[in-house]
Amino acid sequence: MHIDHIGIAVKNLDEAIETYEKILNTKCDKKEIVESEKVATAFFNTGESKVELLGATEPDSVITKYIEKKGEGIHHVAFEVDDIYAELDRLRGEGFTVLNEQPKDGADNKLVAFLHPKGNHGVLVELCQSKKE
Amino acid sequence: MHIDHIGIAVKNLDEAIETYEKILNTKCDKKEIVESEKVATAFFNTGESKVELLGATEPDSVITKYIEKKGEGIHHVAFEVDDIYAELDRLRGEGFTVLNEQPKDGADNKLVAFLHPKGNHGVLVELCQSKKE
Repeated sequence: MHIDHIGIAVKNLDEAIETYEKILNTKCDKKEIVESEKVATAFFNTGESKVELLGATEPDSVITKYIEKKGEGIHHVAFEVDDIYAELDRLRGEGFTVLNEQPKDGADNKLVAFLHPKGNHGVLVELCQSKKE
Repeated sequence: MHIDHIGIAVKNLDEAIETYEKILNTKCDKKEIVESEKVATAFFNTGESKVELLGATEPDSVITKYIEKKGEGIHHVAFEVDDIYAELDRLRGEGFTVLNEQPKDGADNKLVAFLHPKGNHGVLVELCQSKKE
């Protein structure tokens, strides 16, 4: 299990892309909209673990709600696993609260599921698995 | 530049180690106290980018203050660079606020410096460089 990416919730995606292009000294690698989440994403290739910026595409996006409550900042950390179904079973068995009955389609051609932050010392943990071609 | 680690602020380090050993399905790799910061750290080897748990060792630790204000959760992301002095100069030139006049000793045998979250869409960004042996 390794860190696939960290997700950063931002108010204005274009401004944030400009900022992170400066910090990371590299261009944004890929932009993608995840319709089901009402989120626009921008990825930066920073080695094995990427940086993902997350902006709302609608006022009722999860990102809008997050920023209203907590402000801009790191929203989640995602760990890549080989078998997301097996990992979710393992973690349910350990007593963690999985927020998704089944893994769903996420950005970057992955299946994703989340663990509730309350069980993880305040951290929203994503598990993800690259979809087979 | 790649993600060296994410730092997670926790109230009880031993409990958090137990939790993250379950999530990550691996044992804590290393514990270390950073006296100057009044912080106890615990690292997990999760590939190129590590997970660092951060607990306070004194009531006036930066971690205590952070948790009082924001609650437990992801406290910072650290990017490893080859030349921290050159990177800090570059980022100052781009208008970022560097919180440390000079890089200082951090955990894991590194020189570290931080960028103020206000310029980074709410994210406390650490730059770090492994010290020469």
